[in-house]
Amino acid sequence: MVQSLVLSVDAMGGDSAPGIVIEGLDQFLATQKDVSVILHGHEGHLEPLLADAPRVAEAASLRHCEDQITMSDKPSQALRKRSSSMWKTIESVRDGEAQASISAGNTGALMAMSMMLLRRMDGVHRPAMAALWPTQRGRIVVLDVGANLEADGNQLMTYAIMGEAYARAIRGVERPSIGILNVGSEEQKGHEEVRRAAELIKSSGLDLNYSGFVEGNDISEGTVDVVVTDGFSGNIALKTAEGTARLVAAFVREALTSSPLAKAGALMASGGLRQLRVRMDPSSVNGGVLLGLNGVSVKSHGGTDAKGFATALKLAADLARSDFKTEVAASLARVQAARQDASESAA
Amino acid sequence: MVQSLVLSVDAMGGDSAPGIVIEGLDQFLATQKDVSVILHGHEGHLEPLLADAPRVAEAASLRHCEDQITMSDKPSQALRKRSSSMWKTIESVRDGEAQASISAGNTGALMAMSMMLLRRMDGVHRPAMAALWPTQRGRIVVLDVGANLEADGNQLMTYAIMGEAYARAIRGVERPSIGILNVGSEEQKGHEEVRRAAELIKSSGLDLNYSGFVEGNDISEGTVDVVVTDGFSGNIALKTAEGTARLVAAFVREALTSSPLAKAGALMASGGLRQLRVRMDPSSVNGGVLLGLNGVSVKSHGGTDAKGFATALKLAADLARSDFKTEVAASLARVQAARQDASESAA
Repeated sequence: MVQSLVLSVDAMGGDSAPGIVIEGLDQFLATQKDVSVILHGHEGHLEPLLADAPRVAEAASLRHCEDQITMSDKPSQALRKRSSSMWKTIESVRDGEAQASISAGNTGALMAMSMMLLRRMDGVHRPAMAALWPTQRGRIVVLDVGANLEADGNQLMTYAIMGEAYARAIRGVERPSIGILNVGSEEQKGHEEVRRAAELIKSSGLDLNYSGFVEGNDISEGTVDVVVTDGFSGNIALKTAEGTARLVAAFVREALTSSPLAKAGALMASGGLRQLRVRMDPSSVNGGVLLGLNGVSVKSHGGTDAKGFATALKLAADLARSDFKTEVAASLARVQAARQDASESAA
Repeated sequence: MVQSLVLSVDAMGGDSAPGIVIEGLDQFLATQKDVSVILHGHEGHLEPLLADAPRVAEAASLRHCEDQITMSDKPSQALRKRSSSMWKTIESVRDGEAQASISAGNTGALMAMSMMLLRRMDGVHRPAMAALWPTQRGRIVVLDVGANLEADGNQLMTYAIMGEAYARAIRGVERPSIGILNVGSEEQKGHEEVRRAAELIKSSGLDLNYSGFVEGNDISEGTVDVVVTDGFSGNIALKTAEGTARLVAAFVREALTSSPLAKAGALMASGGLRQLRVRMDPSSVNGGVLLGLNGVSVKSHGGTDAKGFATALKLAADLARSDFKTEVAASLARVQAARQDASESAA
């Protein structure tokens, strides 16, 4: 049997690991051919689960890890845990055994380990976590959603370059439009770093499709294809959107069960409502990728369910098969060349 | 006729001024007794509108202003426009002619003018904009939603004190719980300023009901009564939530018109769905108040409709009649006393 793709999976990361990891793998593998899995985690916990999941047991080779990363480990502590399942998961990608890694564990630890093991691409100071965000005009790319708390103008500009290349590779948009997240769309708005990023993008010498500043509501409206922000604001925006979607879903449920007549109506509309549930399901959009690394490292939401983990696995497989790293590296090289030209003509 | 309350209104602020201001006043005045209005704006624009709005014309005394603040005016430029409608609107509160001011204009300008005219309360370095946010457990207070882009630990701590006192006065909760917005709930998460704020709140010597760090999804879940954050993240969270709610509403509409059967069901459920529309209506939650000033200055969303402006007017009237300023000032005084005790015992 030809194994065209190997995924490396951290079985011990996330709030409900390893249970949902195995269930998620089972769902994912039901839809895939030619994928095998290296499963890193504690034998004692995993063997009973694998006994009940023959599809996973067949596709996965289990690698025992004594240690694991907890949610309270600081990145510096995590980097010392080199026999942890998370470290081993990323190491398999570094060693070329697997084409992508997936973990639902501690984001800071994942970021630190991914940087150390997979190394940054030329021109990248800090990788960024990119999410695919559902909008009124299809999915868009939002980054950084939590890899780095702060970002200066130069980093934000690098996020824009990487996000643009990612959107091109993943969504097939020829010239993705780029917006920087801010508190207003006017040029003088915002703190120094967002204004500096705007200047750097405009003067980059690259032919970027830059649309200016965008606001929080522009994300879900899909005003641009790529939204650039620092990891603190990006993470808060992402989780606020999740919370709001859940709140509205609860309101809709209440409205459609508020009377016998409403319930009967909801029953008649159940086809459309089922479609709505699928669209609104947060597990259908799970998975962020660290952009700017020489390897694919995907982060699943720590609180996701099995279906959400399967979505993250699908994202990792799609990314491993795509040429997004080549796109990102090529764009970064163009920026560096443009900078060199600028400094030479200045000299 | 006894005029127990006077509101000062900027007729020229916001995307659709002065039209929606007059319409909003008309809706608001239909529900209120004993309220009169000082209306600041351009006579030439306002007189024709007032001719068609007899209720507003009766309650309002028009003050002509040649000048107005634009969305692109920087705060420093705005402060020089002392014959603008925004300046005059706040000035009426400073001079004791009105008990509260309302403007839908430029936030930065409103903040700068309000600080200059109404002055800060003792112990407040920068006022914060507080919003009432709909959640699964009723409305909560979120601040700062855009008055200051950045906030250090000490400012965030002051926001917590002010937000707590505001929640007590407005919502009648005895000991409102407080959370600081962050990218994770663990103590070591986040940048230095949020961790510093947490330390300051815990060591404040005040008996605050502090619940620790909360994440974006906790806002709509109503996990705490008061969510504290810097104005950049708060503004992005607020607008992201608005955008998400609109996106979901669009999805619901599509689901309920996707087939003749779904349409028929929606018709049967129309009672519940009408209730849902009311709950989801962004104009029913419009209006932020600047906390930490010796006067009531309310900011309406610039893009709101007449109903939203009426909501902001209602908020201003409620605040003018409440004792929230006394609550806020008392809490600030307790912090300062606690600080003094601490420094004396250290000396």
